[in-house]
Amino acid sequence: MYRTKTCGELRLANVGECVTLSGWVQRTRKMGGMTFADLRDRYGITQLVFDESKDKELCDRANRLGREWVIQVVGEVSERQSKNKNLPTGDVEIIVRQLNVLNEALTPPFTIEEQSDGGDDLRMKYRYLDLRRPNVRRNLELRHKFAFEVRRYLDQQGFMEIETPVLVNSTPEGARDFVVPSRMNPGQFYALPQSPQTLKQLLMVAGMDRYFQIVKCFRDEDLRADRQPEFTQIDCEMSFVEQEDILQMFEGMSRHLFKTILGIDIPTLPRMTWADAMKYYGSDKPDTRFDMKFVELMDVLKGTGEFSVFNEAEYIGGICCEGQAVYTRKQLDQLTDFVRRPQVGAKGLVYARVGEDGSVKSSVDKFYSPEVLERLKQTMNAKPGDLILIISGPDTLKARKQLCELRLEMGQRMGLRPKDKFSCLWVIDFPMYEWSDEEQRLMAMHHPFTSPKPEDVPLLDTDPASVRANAYDMVINGVEVGGGSIRIHDAKLQQKIFEILGFTPEQAQQKFGFLMNAFKYGAPPHGGLAYGLDRFVSLFAQLDSIRDCIAFPKNNSGRDVMLDAPGVIDQSQLDELHLAINLPKA
Amino acid sequence: MYRTKTCGELRLANVGECVTLSGWVQRTRKMGGMTFADLRDRYGITQLVFDESKDKELCDRANRLGREWVIQVVGEVSERQSKNKNLPTGDVEIIVRQLNVLNEALTPPFTIEEQSDGGDDLRMKYRYLDLRRPNVRRNLELRHKFAFEVRRYLDQQGFMEIETPVLVNSTPEGARDFVVPSRMNPGQFYALPQSPQTLKQLLMVAGMDRYFQIVKCFRDEDLRADRQPEFTQIDCEMSFVEQEDILQMFEGMSRHLFKTILGIDIPTLPRMTWADAMKYYGSDKPDTRFDMKFVELMDVLKGTGEFSVFNEAEYIGGICCEGQAVYTRKQLDQLTDFVRRPQVGAKGLVYARVGEDGSVKSSVDKFYSPEVLERLKQTMNAKPGDLILIISGPDTLKARKQLCELRLEMGQRMGLRPKDKFSCLWVIDFPMYEWSDEEQRLMAMHHPFTSPKPEDVPLLDTDPASVRANAYDMVINGVEVGGGSIRIHDAKLQQKIFEILGFTPEQAQQKFGFLMNAFKYGAPPHGGLAYGLDRFVSLFAQLDSIRDCIAFPKNNSGRDVMLDAPGVIDQSQLDELHLAINLPKA
Repeated sequence: MYRTKTCGELRLANVGECVTLSGWVQRTRKMGGMTFADLRDRYGITQLVFDESKDKELCDRANRLGREWVIQVVGEVSERQSKNKNLPTGDVEIIVRQLNVLNEALTPPFTIEEQSDGGDDLRMKYRYLDLRRPNVRRNLELRHKFAFEVRRYLDQQGFMEIETPVLVNSTPEGARDFVVPSRMNPGQFYALPQSPQTLKQLLMVAGMDRYFQIVKCFRDEDLRADRQPEFTQIDCEMSFVEQEDILQMFEGMSRHLFKTILGIDIPTLPRMTWADAMKYYGSDKPDTRFDMKFVELMDVLKGTGEFSVFNEAEYIGGICCEGQAVYTRKQLDQLTDFVRRPQVGAKGLVYARVGEDGSVKSSVDKFYSPEVLERLKQTMNAKPGDLILIISGPDTLKARKQLCELRLEMGQRMGLRPKDKFSCLWVIDFPMYEWSDEEQRLMAMHHPFTSPKPEDVPLLDTDPASVRANAYDMVINGVEVGGGSIRIHDAKLQQKIFEILGFTPEQAQQKFGFLMNAFKYGAPPHGGLAYGLDRFVSLFAQLDSIRDCIAFPKNNSGRDVMLDAPGVIDQSQLDELHLAINLPKA
Repeated sequence: MYRTKTCGELRLANVGECVTLSGWVQRTRKMGGMTFADLRDRYGITQLVFDESKDKELCDRANRLGREWVIQVVGEVSERQSKNKNLPTGDVEIIVRQLNVLNEALTPPFTIEEQSDGGDDLRMKYRYLDLRRPNVRRNLELRHKFAFEVRRYLDQQGFMEIETPVLVNSTPEGARDFVVPSRMNPGQFYALPQSPQTLKQLLMVAGMDRYFQIVKCFRDEDLRADRQPEFTQIDCEMSFVEQEDILQMFEGMSRHLFKTILGIDIPTLPRMTWADAMKYYGSDKPDTRFDMKFVELMDVLKGTGEFSVFNEAEYIGGICCEGQAVYTRKQLDQLTDFVRRPQVGAKGLVYARVGEDGSVKSSVDKFYSPEVLERLKQTMNAKPGDLILIISGPDTLKARKQLCELRLEMGQRMGLRPKDKFSCLWVIDFPMYEWSDEEQRLMAMHHPFTSPKPEDVPLLDTDPASVRANAYDMVINGVEVGGGSIRIHDAKLQQKIFEILGFTPEQAQQKFGFLMNAFKYGAPPHGGLAYGLDRFVSLFAQLDSIRDCIAFPKNNSGRDVMLDAPGVIDQSQLDELHLAINLPKA
């Protein structure tokens, strides 16, 4: 071992001990006849002292140390005269007697500090240096602990972690698969799993009863900031359970994680129906750190004045922003610009300020009588000093989504979304289907094996679009961290669901026959859910992007700029795989 | 929840309780007016009783239950008259009051019992039924527990589990990569990692200090019984360590695993040099459950008689098989056939029986004087009743490997290799290089980043083939369960190693430049190892094949016959990837 202690553990109690430390030189500074160096390893920073008056040659060598050199020192732990209260090791320093340079280092292209001067591209290219920064390292430490506590909880609850294969077959529905040509089976391809959904259901047919896996999944999608082509799921499934059992089990897991990792006791998770989430927050993943619920204003504003936009609207809704009547015209114009951005897509917004005297001043004053504006104020439950913001539109779903964006923006501006506050809930009773304009048919909102709520089964014949599923999402701070469903285990019901999705029995057999055949051999009632580990950890670490909790992430083009992957391969490899590349002509 | 208890937990203490159980019908039998059914779930089997005299309709329904139907029953726990001592639940039965068929089942294509009547192909096609067999399920339970205890031990030792990417780039040396075409980077390919070797070394450069990962790795090799195209490694790396630190750390892990999983206290692991392993066992992974070490017989038998085979040999070695002088001529002929099989490749074998009177009778009697045969007996330390078996050849390495096969065969025949006995050791001091006839150059035995033993560094200039590496394998019962090395962290030494391997600086830069560049920014001394999880678990579970501890294994053609993967993909997918298939013409 190149050390007897780490750079993070020495305290006053160790004064007088002779120790050996190893690590990276964070920085050196010369003060009079003394040279000080900060030695860093994963566990902390310890100050080294070289005294010219005691050993000039040693001190000269210390003066030649560069940033990020790897060294080993032997010396005595000594109490510092000027203590550093910001460091756990700040009470002591090492009076160095021996210095051994283990490796020199080129000057890093950015500083190895919490606030680095490296841009994103440079940091990713030299990710092995970026990871030396304490805050980035802490994200990985948290991720390790998080995954370990997930395993500990699930193991205690009788779950078995079972590895499912990475080389599987292409799935008929869902996102685009990554494929892997098979050399031993020319012309054929494996696919990388988008999730182990089918396999975990087979494990239930196999009687495994309680399964989980922390597992890499793959989707060849065009990437956004919070998407990666490979990502990690906490994938779970249970047999002989109903929805309530799953909610209890995984609420327990979340409670365990918050407690053991963050030291936070979270309250019982509220449950919100999907319908309420859409009605009050315009989203199936509401950020409930703050209230500011939607208030529907159709009764108040449609047909009660001359404002044609409202009179033609299918939806009018508002939010009441407490104490924000001070918003200037300029600020309100900014908000209007915000909702008009293509990502939000509203035509505009209507506002109403409630004065200190209780009077209402609105951008649509001229269209409405004072009585209507007074009724607006009362309906919105607005107090003097509040700001009412209103969105309307010809499509309820779209208008709600716009109002949702506006609510989140106001929550952000008003400081109501602090990253160190956590608000968790279950969103339940998702619809079974959603209409696809593109496909001109009902599509499974979750997946085609999701069970309808028993009480809604009769509606499958009369009004399938209104059928609710035994499907649920766990939402924290406006982020869907996980979701799942009770699966159908009854072959006849499954057949009916396929019919509603527009599959003939032959198509259903072709697409899903494999799983349906397995189900014929005794499928138990079962259900489960999957969490996005990257997202869950990002929330705990209070990160803006999931990339910051991934050791070696890919960029928006799916490239690992450090490894320079993907890359070209040899012709001989292509030949072995019986493949040819047909690039589009430039 | 569809149950209040599992099928494995009811005991006499529960008698009188009303319980709900769910599970699969293992079998039913009618005895007089009673129908008995065994209900099975992951946790055990419980006997159900239906009494015709009490509820005829219920009993009739029970009589219609088929094998593997999924049912739920409500009933009272009752003491059995004829107890089954082979079952933990064998003292009780359930007097059923309600029966609820949750799912019917087709008759399975083989019996769901420890000893199944299904052949390997059928079992793999219906793997979800095969996994219902208690012994197969127990293998997965053991694997879960094994992985969990690995994580617990390493977490306690300060290791962080860090996920490295699955979509990486093709590696310049080693086995064949699986590749993944990139849609977003046309004409380019990711590769699936053969191991995270490079990435874990980068994590050491990144200061992570102690890393591990239980991780899927991929090799597109032609498959053997104990190989899978995807397999799982316990991958580990540490910084600021020497070989001794790693041996201690991972010997501790093995001790923890044997103790917590099998309840076995293993002794301190002996350490055997690679040279001794080859000399005494003809293998770098000796099975040390039994002794029967090689004895070199060149002094005794070369040039001391008229037997030209020995007189021309470069190697003559024997093993002494205790008490096996009773071997008949027919048995000895079988052994000769064994060593002549192409997989072993010997020309033949020579034997000598030691009679009860101490006399020696050998197949080469006529070539040697009684004195030589007596000296043979003494050199072999053979006692009356022992059988001496001798292999010779013109190539020491090959002859030793043949003798190794013979030793293992005799150990097997003599019952010296029981699966429930474990003998662990470290094999150390591997050579740095081995000569490749194919490439006509020295090749790295481990990999080109393996560090030579410091005391052998001077030999790099004079006799590189004799340089020993800081490389080590953990061997259990003749199986290499893991191995690793101390890595080179010094750029100059690395340069020299590349030269010996025959790379020009340009070639070295092209093949390994990426890692070498990272090393310029301050690489700590580091080393590690990787275990094959599948093999390690197979040993613990006393399996013949690693397949039996893999939930969904692939066959020797790399196919998953259950999923029917790999398969063909749509032309549109190929087009998106800019790929064309060029199958060889039939």
